[in-house]
Amino acid sequence: MTKQERAARTRHALIRSAAHAFERQGYTQARLADISACAGVSPGALHFHFESKAEVARAVEAAAGVSLRRAAWLAQPPGTNALQRLTNTSHALAERLRGDVVARAGFRLNCESAGGGALNLLREWQTCVEQLLAEAAEEGLLARRLVRADTVSAVVAATTGFELLGRRDPEWLSGQSLAAFWRVLLPRAATAAALTAVDPDGTCPSRAETRTPATTAG
Amino acid sequence: MTKQERAARTRHALIRSAAHAFERQGYTQARLADISACAGVSPGALHFHFESKAEVARAVEAAAGVSLRRAAWLAQPPGTNALQRLTNTSHALAERLRGDVVARAGFRLNCESAGGGALNLLREWQTCVEQLLAEAAEEGLLARRLVRADTVSAVVAATTGFELLGRRDPEWLSGQSLAAFWRVLLPRAATAAALTAVDPDGTCPSRAETRTPATTAG
Repeated sequence: MTKQERAARTRHALIRSAAHAFERQGYTQARLADISACAGVSPGALHFHFESKAEVARAVEAAAGVSLRRAAWLAQPPGTNALQRLTNTSHALAERLRGDVVARAGFRLNCESAGGGALNLLREWQTCVEQLLAEAAEEGLLARRLVRADTVSAVVAATTGFELLGRRDPEWLSGQSLAAFWRVLLPRAATAAALTAVDPDGTCPSRAETRTPATTAG
Repeated sequence: MTKQERAARTRHALIRSAAHAFERQGYTQARLADISACAGVSPGALHFHFESKAEVARAVEAAAGVSLRRAAWLAQPPGTNALQRLTNTSHALAERLRGDVVARAGFRLNCESAGGGALNLLREWQTCVEQLLAEAAEEGLLARRLVRADTVSAVVAATTGFELLGRRDPEWLSGQSLAAFWRVLLPRAATAAALTAVDPDGTCPSRAETRTPATTAG
């Protein structure tokens, strides 16, 4: 292993250890000494990578962003209609939040930060929902009975709620919970024809891939 | 003013001051000295009422519970159908969260606490939604096309999401946002006949009452 590879591995271990600490104790209570100890490195090694706890937190948030964006990307294979891609993406993100402590702690930290930073994961999700529903409209999948902005708002609110509720009870982030929501919403938002082409359970081909972190490092 | 009245007034001022501090700085960063100073009382007076910061936080959560329950109660006048009562209650709670710093900070603290305490405001809201939808079913207002548990879950998730999103952008807790959600959901959940008897904007007669704290002490 080269020096660079070792450094990258240490940085990754520190981010994961910090995510665990932030989730267990909250950002303010978490101690850098515990974070380095649980990552199996010296306090000096931590300070080589991160100047402060705030910098560790930003790294956890950034890693969460990478993890969640990757999950979203894998859930949208080419050739899938936009409503199915939206459904799939919500499933994939919920699964990632359930299974990956870095995604979970980083997303939560990002929600709680004052919003002054450049990274706003909730905003990113909202933009993603807006885009996919705009594409669904272009593909002629949306019923005209609904104002699109209302649909965007309902999807963003419900999925955000699943995350908050899932902090205490992970069942809220299960595939069943997400599917139940889509069973309520899709027949209202989609045309009759589109409805037959969307599976509320999601059709993520990446399901196995996104599940990996849950078992190896949840 | 009697001694008891003065004590009650001081306690109330401390709870409000603590709510402001918790909202601004978070529970861990908030300092008891600042809380007593902003309430215009001595640190000794604070310690007469509360043994610790944790006890102050529990008092803010309890006061939030009282405030939110009162708003919910006022939104459900007798003779109103159960779906309208549910719609009204969601509007009233959102308005209370928007306008009352104690309700807002206490609800948030309660969401973030480990869940070991007796008070669980999210759980209370979930039970309220379950009850009102059970009553709506008894009143014959619910369409059979939806499993009731799915509707409960969608309502709880979306309204919880509005609260989380409203922490950064109060617009999410506006009457318009809530009404948009109900316009999406009601035609799916209600029978055609019931739909004509439910106003997604809410019909809260208590609107003026619940709005008062916003202007006087928001």
